[in-house]
Amino acid sequence: MVEYLDRIGPADGAAMRAAAERQSQLTKPAGSLGVLEELSVRVAGMTGSCPPEVPAPAVVTVFAADHGVHAQGVSPWPQEVTAAMLANFAAGGAAVNAFAANNRVDVRVVDVGVATPVEQLDIIHAKVRPGTRDLYVEDALTEDEVRDAIAVGFDLADRLIQDGYRCLLTGDMGIANTTASAALIATFTGSTADAVTGRGTGIDDATLAHKTAIVQEALASHDVPATEPLKALQAYGGLEHAALAGYLLGAAANKVPVILDGVIAGAAALVAQALHPAVIDYCVAGHRSAEPGHAIALKTLGLQPLVDLDLRLGEGTGAVLAYPILTCAVRVLAEMATFESAGITS
Amino acid sequence: MVEYLDRIGPADGAAMRAAAERQSQLTKPAGSLGVLEELSVRVAGMTGSCPPEVPAPAVVTVFAADHGVHAQGVSPWPQEVTAAMLANFAAGGAAVNAFAANNRVDVRVVDVGVATPVEQLDIIHAKVRPGTRDLYVEDALTEDEVRDAIAVGFDLADRLIQDGYRCLLTGDMGIANTTASAALIATFTGSTADAVTGRGTGIDDATLAHKTAIVQEALASHDVPATEPLKALQAYGGLEHAALAGYLLGAAANKVPVILDGVIAGAAALVAQALHPAVIDYCVAGHRSAEPGHAIALKTLGLQPLVDLDLRLGEGTGAVLAYPILTCAVRVLAEMATFESAGITS
Repeated sequence: MVEYLDRIGPADGAAMRAAAERQSQLTKPAGSLGVLEELSVRVAGMTGSCPPEVPAPAVVTVFAADHGVHAQGVSPWPQEVTAAMLANFAAGGAAVNAFAANNRVDVRVVDVGVATPVEQLDIIHAKVRPGTRDLYVEDALTEDEVRDAIAVGFDLADRLIQDGYRCLLTGDMGIANTTASAALIATFTGSTADAVTGRGTGIDDATLAHKTAIVQEALASHDVPATEPLKALQAYGGLEHAALAGYLLGAAANKVPVILDGVIAGAAALVAQALHPAVIDYCVAGHRSAEPGHAIALKTLGLQPLVDLDLRLGEGTGAVLAYPILTCAVRVLAEMATFESAGITS
Repeated sequence: MVEYLDRIGPADGAAMRAAAERQSQLTKPAGSLGVLEELSVRVAGMTGSCPPEVPAPAVVTVFAADHGVHAQGVSPWPQEVTAAMLANFAAGGAAVNAFAANNRVDVRVVDVGVATPVEQLDIIHAKVRPGTRDLYVEDALTEDEVRDAIAVGFDLADRLIQDGYRCLLTGDMGIANTTASAALIATFTGSTADAVTGRGTGIDDATLAHKTAIVQEALASHDVPATEPLKALQAYGGLEHAALAGYLLGAAANKVPVILDGVIAGAAALVAQALHPAVIDYCVAGHRSAEPGHAIALKTLGLQPLVDLDLRLGEGTGAVLAYPILTCAVRVLAEMATFESAGITS
């Protein structure tokens, strides 16, 4: 872990100041590009250059895993759907495939802990174990399993960036993963189970009350403080949360922007933030999920979402939707004329 | 006008029902793509097919004109900036050029009434008159000028679609155009000048109070009812609003989706709605501008914006940012697997 954290430093303040100064010279009223202006300044800080290069090519990595807490009846979907959706991703038939093709984003799918065997699929095989243990009755993961899953994400980020990718996007798949996310978000934001537990893929009032009680009791019994991110991953999982946290650390270590998808990525980002606060300098919030814990996570992360369209699918769909907004924001810095170059006096 | 309106009919209800049914069969929890699901259903209705083809290629048309009310001191920018920005668009140095290049949208620029001569620029020349008259002291346009400007927009939409474009986007440029927009929005929404007048490109409190008073007095003196859209264009202009209204009518007549940019397009859409309510069936709200009249206009139009990032630049930037969201929504219908085809039982 230390060798990962030692590679991470804060965003480049000089590049950010240069980008803010350049924004004020471009042929538009000051501030008229709203949130995109600050976004461009942040990317300058991440990459340490002004104007930054357009962050392309991009890749969305869908980390997939299963959750032992599924046994508690927190989701209406059978656990086998995780594996079935991996086959769907591999065949190009899921929403994230359609979005990614549209927005020129490549797709990688990683089995970091799916319960069902998926060796036959043409995906990245990095299974740490077949699903977590049930967080309601015991620790979801051992210390070693947590470290192995983090390494999967970190090493993959390293490799993707070596392969030439200049923007990483997060994706996720795993039936019952909003339950583990709720426990993680409550841990790091100090929120109650009530506030952070939602309907996930769509559950009725009775199942929501049951799911909330599961989260509440698990929080009370594990009782992990916000200062112990590795212990929180041990207690609640999931394997994809650990891998995602590693992926974010890896993006930050390489000074490459990473776009977060929804509530699963938000929970993983809270873990990464607790491991090293500067990781968040390299994170862009792709969207705000309809899941209630997500807005709470984003507030603690200090990130403003780019897209807010009631998505609650996961897979990376919100991150992929946001990607062209990020590239538009960066292109402004590189490509727009200044008042001086355009011969306009203000 | 009648020959335009006769070509317009409502969206295709059967195609919309087929699209809604198809959404329910795709490999995702029901409703999990949020606003994008309804958007895909609307495009099916516009084009009369399910699944609809991806609306591409796309073109953003920047209608440019000047405003006589500029003489009242409603903007800090000199009127010559309109022409200077046209040169900037033609040279590819404006924000809309950067966004459009990023999102694979072509750019057309139309002089429908710029005060400064711009014959030397490689743009579409369709000047009806060099700027409107001052709406504070007289009618901005004659009845013939309004009809001519509407024809510029309608005929251009027809031609672009004949040329193969399958999605039209609106853009606009014109110093002082938020003043005319405020008067139009107040007329069609029954709002006060206070509620709909904003800071445009950025004015101080004193100028905002003055601008609001100008709008309020103009509304009182012209006193055009909401049932008289052509008279409203005569009273307040601008030439780009009239051309944009025609462009929306043209898109609707050809059953092609049109993405609205900000407050100028919103004002023009209210005119078009008053001319023929079914026009709005073909309109998508690209974004919500920071200008206060825009949200009020969108409410009356019944449209929900796709992007909400505090943009207040115009030019078509908000529409171009939204374009990939529209194409993602449509691709879902055409490209996603169904539960049946993917072999997943729910």
